[in-house]
Amino acid sequence: MNQVDDILSSGSGVAGDDNLARVRAIFEPTTVAVVGASQRHGSVGRAVFKNLLDGGFSGVIYPVNVRAHSVCGVRAYPSLSAIDDQIDLAVIIVPAPQVLQVAREAGQKGVKGLLVITAGFREVGRAGLAMEEELKAVCQEYSMSLVGPNCLGVINMAKDICLNASFVRRPPLPGNIGFISQSGALCTAVLDYAARKNIGFSKFISVGNKADIDELALLRYLHADPETKVIMMYVEDLRHGFEFIDVVREITGGDNPTPIVAVKSGRTAAGAAAVSSHTGSLAGSEAIYDALFHQSGIYRAQTISHLFDYAIAFATQPLPKSNRVAIITNAGGPGIIATDITINVGLTLAKFSPDTTDVLRCTLPTTANINNPVDVIGDAGVDRYKAAFEAVLKDENVDGVIFILTPQSMTDIYATAQIIPALAKKSGKPVLTSFMGELDVRDAIDFLEANHIPHYHFPEMAARAMGAMYRHFKWISRQHLPEIEITPNRPRARQVIEEAIAAGRTYLGEAEGNKILEAYGFPMLPARLVTSAEAAASAVREMGRSVFKIASPQIVHKSDLGGVRVGIATEDEARAAYDDIIGVISENAPQATIEGIYVQQMAGKGVEVILGINRYKVFGPLLMFGLGGIFVEIFKDVSFRVAPIRHNAARRMINSIKAFPMLNGARGAEPCDTNELARCLILLSALATENPEIAELDINPLIVHPNGMGCSVADCRILLDLDRMK
Amino acid sequence: MNQVDDILSSGSGVAGDDNLARVRAIFEPTTVAVVGASQRHGSVGRAVFKNLLDGGFSGVIYPVNVRAHSVCGVRAYPSLSAIDDQIDLAVIIVPAPQVLQVAREAGQKGVKGLLVITAGFREVGRAGLAMEEELKAVCQEYSMSLVGPNCLGVINMAKDICLNASFVRRPPLPGNIGFISQSGALCTAVLDYAARKNIGFSKFISVGNKADIDELALLRYLHADPETKVIMMYVEDLRHGFEFIDVVREITGGDNPTPIVAVKSGRTAAGAAAVSSHTGSLAGSEAIYDALFHQSGIYRAQTISHLFDYAIAFATQPLPKSNRVAIITNAGGPGIIATDITINVGLTLAKFSPDTTDVLRCTLPTTANINNPVDVIGDAGVDRYKAAFEAVLKDENVDGVIFILTPQSMTDIYATAQIIPALAKKSGKPVLTSFMGELDVRDAIDFLEANHIPHYHFPEMAARAMGAMYRHFKWISRQHLPEIEITPNRPRARQVIEEAIAAGRTYLGEAEGNKILEAYGFPMLPARLVTSAEAAASAVREMGRSVFKIASPQIVHKSDLGGVRVGIATEDEARAAYDDIIGVISENAPQATIEGIYVQQMAGKGVEVILGINRYKVFGPLLMFGLGGIFVEIFKDVSFRVAPIRHNAARRMINSIKAFPMLNGARGAEPCDTNELARCLILLSALATENPEIAELDINPLIVHPNGMGCSVADCRILLDLDRMK
Repeated sequence: MNQVDDILSSGSGVAGDDNLARVRAIFEPTTVAVVGASQRHGSVGRAVFKNLLDGGFSGVIYPVNVRAHSVCGVRAYPSLSAIDDQIDLAVIIVPAPQVLQVAREAGQKGVKGLLVITAGFREVGRAGLAMEEELKAVCQEYSMSLVGPNCLGVINMAKDICLNASFVRRPPLPGNIGFISQSGALCTAVLDYAARKNIGFSKFISVGNKADIDELALLRYLHADPETKVIMMYVEDLRHGFEFIDVVREITGGDNPTPIVAVKSGRTAAGAAAVSSHTGSLAGSEAIYDALFHQSGIYRAQTISHLFDYAIAFATQPLPKSNRVAIITNAGGPGIIATDITINVGLTLAKFSPDTTDVLRCTLPTTANINNPVDVIGDAGVDRYKAAFEAVLKDENVDGVIFILTPQSMTDIYATAQIIPALAKKSGKPVLTSFMGELDVRDAIDFLEANHIPHYHFPEMAARAMGAMYRHFKWISRQHLPEIEITPNRPRARQVIEEAIAAGRTYLGEAEGNKILEAYGFPMLPARLVTSAEAAASAVREMGRSVFKIASPQIVHKSDLGGVRVGIATEDEARAAYDDIIGVISENAPQATIEGIYVQQMAGKGVEVILGINRYKVFGPLLMFGLGGIFVEIFKDVSFRVAPIRHNAARRMINSIKAFPMLNGARGAEPCDTNELARCLILLSALATENPEIAELDINPLIVHPNGMGCSVADCRILLDLDRMK
Repeated sequence: MNQVDDILSSGSGVAGDDNLARVRAIFEPTTVAVVGASQRHGSVGRAVFKNLLDGGFSGVIYPVNVRAHSVCGVRAYPSLSAIDDQIDLAVIIVPAPQVLQVAREAGQKGVKGLLVITAGFREVGRAGLAMEEELKAVCQEYSMSLVGPNCLGVINMAKDICLNASFVRRPPLPGNIGFISQSGALCTAVLDYAARKNIGFSKFISVGNKADIDELALLRYLHADPETKVIMMYVEDLRHGFEFIDVVREITGGDNPTPIVAVKSGRTAAGAAAVSSHTGSLAGSEAIYDALFHQSGIYRAQTISHLFDYAIAFATQPLPKSNRVAIITNAGGPGIIATDITINVGLTLAKFSPDTTDVLRCTLPTTANINNPVDVIGDAGVDRYKAAFEAVLKDENVDGVIFILTPQSMTDIYATAQIIPALAKKSGKPVLTSFMGELDVRDAIDFLEANHIPHYHFPEMAARAMGAMYRHFKWISRQHLPEIEITPNRPRARQVIEEAIAAGRTYLGEAEGNKILEAYGFPMLPARLVTSAEAAASAVREMGRSVFKIASPQIVHKSDLGGVRVGIATEDEARAAYDDIIGVISENAPQATIEGIYVQQMAGKGVEVILGINRYKVFGPLLMFGLGGIFVEIFKDVSFRVAPIRHNAARRMINSIKAFPMLNGARGAEPCDTNELARCLILLSALATENPEIAELDINPLIVHPNGMGCSVADCRILLDLDRMK
């Protein structure tokens, strides 16, 4: 097992017993002290205390207030230490300058968890950040876990706990969605929407500044929580790289998978700037987040409204077992719109079995469309809808149903809604509905939502949600390709790197870079550095048609300065080319140190691709793959993954670029050796993971030869940077 | 003025007096007969009659019913002819087989307009189509205009008319949106949504099968209607090509422009199939509709929900005068989400003037973000919101405002809503709002909507709507480039085409195709057809480096069969190549008639592009442009326009492909001669428009040389088809 395999198999159980205990200290206390509880109307201290009291908390709540004798009729204490009971959780709402003092007191009293609602920490600048670091240190010293600071609080709806330690305006309904938000303000809006749509939550968490407990810890906890069926997240930044992927992949796609849907805001540069000014957080590159979510199996929603659309489907419906959708409608237009989106999100319209078609033919009028989308026609009553719904649910070629109703004058809206829940449940297939309109359909929608049938304002949203469910199904049922064995000569590569560092060199040109790549097992072209015209000639004699490139640490763009000649075939050409390049470079770059000419055998035919590494603080190395030249520069047609990757991810990197057909035999060309290309990506991943000094690396181009004929590294450059090591 | 200019300037006034009179016969009658009016509860005949009666129609309504003496208390007549009054509009609800008879009776009585609600015509197959054709003929015979058949009816909300000739369940509120729908069922859902959102309509039209009056006639009418400020359309098919563009461009972008937003369903192949089975209509290619909408200045919405989002913005707000948006929020997260979408739809975040920043600094707390997006912080009351809102509205660098509120515990939701309408109106700038949530914010949302401030569930939708408004502003204020003069030799081109037709040939290879292109003034390479090795040699002597291509009417893919040689430079090479090609072709395609070898001078350096024509029934010729090879085949990176086009459209065709940088000097290359390329597109447009026998034409490739050096047609093929002529 190599080092990368170690990393790839590092997860010590998804939940992590330690981690669970730490999060439980916040969510499952038996005694809670509210430090800063207040009588004053409109104060956060009152709102939090009242929510705890009204929420029916199963343990004991102690208000702490320096001046008050009681808060809301409950005996108050002047300080934490004055309470004559063990305290599990302290909720802190005192002004920021007093928080540290309270935290220390809590630590001394043996409190296990702190929930700091108070704002005024890292989000307000350097002084705040220092205070937050100190708060963290105090918590570490006393082994207290911490949620916040600068948050709205947390809610645990578990029946035997009922902890509403937050200042939300409206408590949630109980349900099976776990919600994690990096925006406190969004929480209030989410609860308001959810109330209207009868959506319930298991846990509801405002993470605030994430000084200690963050999304990763919470995802582990929610995955282990039997009451949480799906997780919704609003994220502004994340602070883990591969570790996040490693754990979350197991949560979303391992045994007992929990789907996660997330909105990550700050996608654009302007949005990212707003994130920074808002939370003081590091807004990482979009490519990294896309890769992180993709590799973790998190379904990324584009907007908050899509987040809801997907979450309610996951929360209430079984997953479709394949992508064949039936649409039932009493109006052509909405059926067509749903069809369009169904196809666009990667689903197909089910082809009904003859049995189904027979049933539909017998029960629907002749003007109805008995093919998919089934149009039961505007004057359809309950019976016609029911016959069609039963028939398509029973059909083995149907994996899920989108049920559309428009309120025609003859439509019995409510009665039609009533047939859905029982039939849907019996079938074991997902059913999503859209009863179009607002007022006439209101009662029916309320009925559907109360009976856990997802309802969408417009049928296209139902189609989109079905697409999300199918994608999750594909994720949890994906095949794992056999891993590709690699046998890098690590010591040799380390030696080259360490020598460069010792010599103070951070830019490694082709000759040195190739040594590292060769050590890792990349397919190299025969090459050598020559320092005389005669040596050049003899190199060409041995290697055949060659490329000559100037070797100089100062010259990065060799062609631009006239430092490259291709197709040198004879010894005479070699001598002439040697003298020529040296002459041109001496003239064009008189200050450059010339190490000689790098003579490299010409690569055979193939498609030119680029492989790259770019290392980020926090996230680690990001791998890039794409076709060379215009494909990268103009079409930005590249794929990214956070290293390390396995065989599956390498294949997906290759397949997911738009230009993939060019590697796969498009336009009558021979298919290229994508097996060897996948191996190169695995090697790249290992190289990046095992050598943290490599800040940037480009193999540009790697030539991918026809199938079975391998690849050739035709040029590379490496940038070392000790600062960028994690 | 050439023929294309004639077509391009053909519009005899947008409204068309004739057209207006015909549509008015339906929408502005003084007497209406309802043939098939009924007492029976649940019948369409009753619903229509009751709607007319309850709607407060300003004229006289006559129920026609064979058996009943009265309908809903109004004296009924056994037939149209039995009514002792002139009838302007007859609404027909009798069963399909009786419709023709009633229509004839109406014609004889001098009725001016028919509204046929009855279904069972072209949408049910061949027999229905025949009946619909006959109905059309009857209307023509008696000069009656016709809406329908197979529709929900029409509504004219004008105060002095109040015509609700439909069986909608819920009549609309009066307002300034004109709505046209090809789906009757969708109408009921749209009215239901609209009622909830306080959205009013000027005219509400279900067009049904469009046997006579269709979208184009209605758009002209609505444009002339002083009460209609914006038009919403749901379209499944259109049945006009350039005529549609020519008229609608004036409606959306001429004097007194009326914005049009449309959803066109049936985008995917499966969706299009559903359209056909649903309405029996021709679902044209997506590319045509995109081109039609684009050239007409119609804003295409992706979903019904977006259609509403855009329409309410257009209906109530002034257009932004540029793209600089200010966002005000009391919560960071939603502000970031709005920022992301704002940037994605092509807007920018306004940079505030120093004055604004000063005001914000003085009035907001230190923790607030005084830059854009302005975050007034969760505990903001009305005063803080008001100060920020006033300041940004006043700022000359701000063109529009997105106002976001989340219901925090200290937020005075309703009072905050109350400050918006007056300040927004005074500013003359568009203001879109998002008060997030459902229940707590309900009253405030109702207040905003009642006061004509658009409200969106989620801030990203507000940003999207602002983007649509800005795009419309750009359209109405666009510059018109000076036209490019062309002087085609039309008779010469006609002669080549007519000779081919006379000879029964429909496929024109390169030699013949080049004659036509040359006659139109395309930049041709010197070339000639030779029939001996010696003639080939002499051609090369004169023209220099040449390409040899087999000339045979049976051989389309010349290279595949070995029929092409490039870079023939000497007379010897020419002789050898001639014999070689003839030999290879005789072997590979023994049945082909060999006309000789087409010798063509090699083109100079340049970028290879493709120009194409594809003629569609109904829509006419569709022009295509893109870069050659993989760009078309793998990336589908092409632009389309319906011919004829002017200079503006030609430029947009060129600029709008993703690979445009490759023509514009990307990666250090010389910029190409896009002026000449634009001229070629204008020539192509003229050729397509003036020669309807050309069904397909490819110029592949056209070589675009560096700036100032023109283009060269390097290959072409033309397919004639008399059937595809309009």
